[in-house]
Amino acid sequence: MHRQFEEELEHLKQTILVMAGLVERTLDDVAKALVEQDVERAQEIIRRDDEVDRLEIEIDRLATEFIARHQPTATDLRFVIVAIKLGPELERIADDAVNVAQRVLHLARLPLLKPLIDLPRMLALAQAMVNDAITAYVNRDPIAAREIIRRDDEVDRLYWQIFRELLTFMMEEPSVISRAIDLILVARFIERMADQATNIAEEVVYLVEGVPIRHQHDEPEKPRFGE
Amino acid sequence: MHRQFEEELEHLKQTILVMAGLVERTLDDVAKALVEQDVERAQEIIRRDDEVDRLEIEIDRLATEFIARHQPTATDLRFVIVAIKLGPELERIADDAVNVAQRVLHLARLPLLKPLIDLPRMLALAQAMVNDAITAYVNRDPIAAREIIRRDDEVDRLYWQIFRELLTFMMEEPSVISRAIDLILVARFIERMADQATNIAEEVVYLVEGVPIRHQHDEPEKPRFGE
Repeated sequence: MHRQFEEELEHLKQTILVMAGLVERTLDDVAKALVEQDVERAQEIIRRDDEVDRLEIEIDRLATEFIARHQPTATDLRFVIVAIKLGPELERIADDAVNVAQRVLHLARLPLLKPLIDLPRMLALAQAMVNDAITAYVNRDPIAAREIIRRDDEVDRLYWQIFRELLTFMMEEPSVISRAIDLILVARFIERMADQATNIAEEVVYLVEGVPIRHQHDEPEKPRFGE
Repeated sequence: MHRQFEEELEHLKQTILVMAGLVERTLDDVAKALVEQDVERAQEIIRRDDEVDRLEIEIDRLATEFIARHQPTATDLRFVIVAIKLGPELERIADDAVNVAQRVLHLARLPLLKPLIDLPRMLALAQAMVNDAITAYVNRDPIAAREIIRRDDEVDRLYWQIFRELLTFMMEEPSVISRAIDLILVARFIERMADQATNIAEEVVYLVEGVPIRHQHDEPEKPRFGE
């Protein structure tokens, strides 16, 4: 029974890593699609989303069966419950990647306003947060998790900077409004990806230390700009 | 033991209803704050968000302890697992209400573009979806849940209509850009509230029928407009 316990727990972990790997690849692709205005790649991202959804349902099933069969307690129970909460977070990150891909389809019909620098940088930060949060979960590492939570501030700072710049741009040149709004929405989707990574990291701290620290960093709409 | 089982399950349900009631009240308040550009009410909503966060953590704790103590199986286990997933959904809805309240603080500094009609209507639809989804969960009612999922299309339709109108408005009159973007973001937050309600409803169908139907309705960024 104990061996089966370990094996099934390992299978659950592996399935989470497969889902995380798929999300990671999607974020790589969406960064490329965005920078290169690559319509085909964007369409491929949208098509591939079904697989992420399938994995979320699979994690949910494995975790529920594990609880029913092995009746874990204490840390093992919490580990499995966090798995159940992690699936929807990863799925939302993938959804936001799909949202960005949809905006790329729309943006690609017209020339870019300027080469994109800050948005890909923001996306790279969010992607690293997602990868590191999953690693922190699998390793049950609260120190790494706390470090990820701190990085969310940099993403927020970039979001407001991009927002301000695009707003100024639109006011000076109304013909760019539609494209600038697409880019504002893209920035918002990326900012949310970093939020989901933060949620995962907060769950990891709770898992190991037993102290809920969620939402101490929730300030999504704090206006740090004076427009 | 059986009586304790029932009592603790009831306590869990009641806590979810308390949280749902608080979210419902927040959505009432945010509708008023938005329509009346009421800064004080908006600030009150932002302050009150801590209580929602506290309830989410409480539901998580009650559900985890329930599983550890009673080792439920089959439908009871799924019911409790859905409770764990429901907390974050409700919390996100409250977060989006806070996001709207933050936009109200910003909007209130200038006169409104026009009386708001569609946004409050959209908010009322989302609010009804949230309330009904929680009721469907507590009653384990998949028929009600499926009906809620269908209503999401109407909210999406309103979102795109509002988006289009505001875009046209901005192009004709660049001086309204900043306010129009605030309203687009508000529409987006409301659209997401309806999405979270849909997620809850999908969990209810899965809970009772055992068939995952999640994400069959995920088309958040389908462009139905030709701008």
